Amino acid sequence: MRIILCGFGVVAQSLIKLFESREEELYSKYGLKPRVLAVFDSKGSAIDQSGLNLEKLIQVKEKFGTVKNYSEKNNSMKGNEILKNVEADVLIETTASNYKDAEPGMTHITTAMKKGMHVISVNKGPLALAFPSLMELATYNQVMFKFSGTVGGGTPILDYAKNSLRGEKITSFAGILNGTTNYILSNMATGLSFDDALKDAQDRGYVEADESLDLDGLDAAAKLVILANWIMGMKVTMPDIKCVGIRKVTIEDIRKAETNNSVLKLIASCDKELMVSPKEVPKDDPLGVNGTLNAIAFTSEHSGTQTIIGKGAGGTETASSILRDLLDIRQEIAKN
Amino acid sequence: MRIILCGFGVVAQSLIKLFESREEELYSKYGLKPRVLAVFDSKGSAIDQSGLNLEKLIQVKEKFGTVKNYSEKNNSMKGNEILKNVEADVLIETTASNYKDAEPGMTHITTAMKKGMHVISVNKGPLALAFPSLMELATYNQVMFKFSGTVGGGTPILDYAKNSLRGEKITSFAGILNGTTNYILSNMATGLSFDDALKDAQDRGYVEADESLDLDGLDAAAKLVILANWIMGMKVTMPDIKCVGIRKVTIEDIRKAETNNSVLKLIASCDKELMVSPKEVPKDDPLGVNGTLNAIAFTSEHSGTQTIIGKGAGGTETASSILRDLLDIRQEIAKN
Repeated sequence: MRIILCGFGVVAQSLIKLFESREEELYSKYGLKPRVLAVFDSKGSAIDQSGLNLEKLIQVKEKFGTVKNYSEKNNSMKGNEILKNVEADVLIETTASNYKDAEPGMTHITTAMKKGMHVISVNKGPLALAFPSLMELATYNQVMFKFSGTVGGGTPILDYAKNSLRGEKITSFAGILNGTTNYILSNMATGLSFDDALKDAQDRGYVEADESLDLDGLDAAAKLVILANWIMGMKVTMPDIKCVGIRKVTIEDIRKAETNNSVLKLIASCDKELMVSPKEVPKDDPLGVNGTLNAIAFTSEHSGTQTIIGKGAGGTETASSILRDLLDIRQEIAKN
Repeated sequence: MRIILCGFGVVAQSLIKLFESREEELYSKYGLKPRVLAVFDSKGSAIDQSGLNLEKLIQVKEKFGTVKNYSEKNNSMKGNEILKNVEADVLIETTASNYKDAEPGMTHITTAMKKGMHVISVNKGPLALAFPSLMELATYNQVMFKFSGTVGGGTPILDYAKNSLRGEKITSFAGILNGTTNYILSNMATGLSFDDALKDAQDRGYVEADESLDLDGLDAAAKLVILANWIMGMKVTMPDIKCVGIRKVTIEDIRKAETNNSVLKLIASCDKELMVSPKEVPKDDPLGVNGTLNAIAFTSEHSGTQTIIGKGAGGTETASSILRDLLDIRQEIAKN
């Protein structure tokens, strides 16, 4: 399978390492032979139409901070030029999410789809701003569009709701979809101030470069958009979400929750309306998890309420969900 | 789809009610038209080769406590005679689990498979005592064998581990697989004695007629057998499980857990060995859920640890997992 990889951060590098370490197994067990033809990061690109050397790719990135130095030539082509000039089967989009115009991811994805490439995205921006139209574009161009890693990292939340609960109608859901704010709120519950808890989370590398994505609830809202479209069949985008972050949460709010035998969590919910907002959750509710965990509770018509809890981020974890998407595409292609 | 239903307890009755209330939707959305040709309970049977009237079936059961009075004739045929004489596509086995000889479920299932019928079982007995050989028998007779409802009731635990985590290797798992013991232990943690907590659970109808199934861990062990075979590819049966129940748990054990900031739970685990035993679980661990909830944490090679929590029992919930199995069979048949 010929792959173009957009972005080469932690997740993309973890993916390349999974390709390497699981090479034999992927081929023998699933018939998957990933061939990465092109990779680019913000500084430049590496291209080899017969397939890049994955070990070298990682080494170059570690040494120079960019894949640009992979070879002498071809290293200044921009993402879109590559997508136009290199023939591949799948685009894997891993550039950073932004919720203003979703670029450059949006252009990568639409360009690839129009060229007939299947797309896997862990970039939430394009989905948050244009889920319905991207699905239409994929259908129109008869390509597959997968995004398991956008919600829950390695925890297959989307797949669970869509497949394991097939034949069942989900009537509502609510969850903690952002691990960073959960970490901050969990620490505030032990007595830290908001500023100290934020600083601690930053020191550990949990907070996005643009902290607003976490603190103002944008990351959670983006995931809510994806869930609402994919699981509930709604046609919504970011502006449809009522979104309140955690910046205004005070120690008093935390204490008030405590007196109600509850904990304060940033909850993304889909019931009568779509909302991200701090809410009290009873301590013994399955959603009352601490640390960086994500948790989501689906309520269905006949199967009761079911909660899934897992790490919502992490390089290897998110890379493993890209791999699942790739195996799905491999399997679908094999059917035809 | 022509169905024979073995057993007519709470789950089976819930299933019939689901068939009724979702009739239109099942047909329009999934092309499923369930036709129940025969039902039997411990007192007798109801048979109509052109399909029983579901509403009448429920009414008769409620009025007489048995389906035997459905019509004047045919009401004394035993389960096996029915299986031998009535041509159907699917057997749904819902008689009570027993872990001595797994009868009458075992004979129902093997008879149906040998006749080329697909089998759905929510009876854990046959699977606990003979999982490997039942799978072989199903393969040999080219029939499908489904048992989603045996673990987690309506919570699709088996499906999640097998399908949502495809492409991923589960290395170990541990969980609370019996809601009754969780309820008892949760109440003991609030100060009740074992006897009082047991009495309360019995009053609420949570305890099996044979209380040993819950208290001695047999129910949890049976589910562990099913998980170990289905998820981990092991070939094990009940005697392979080290099993300790909760009868010997004292208030002191509960207090000791409390001082470790933990809670005592009956944990079924598959790591180096297969074991059911009371264990301390940290209070803020996702497995530390109270009440009658079930919870299971799967640890995988690349996607971290993921926990699913849900009601592990309930008529409608378990019936909805039978329905999922039936839809799967419907879909597979449609492919051929």
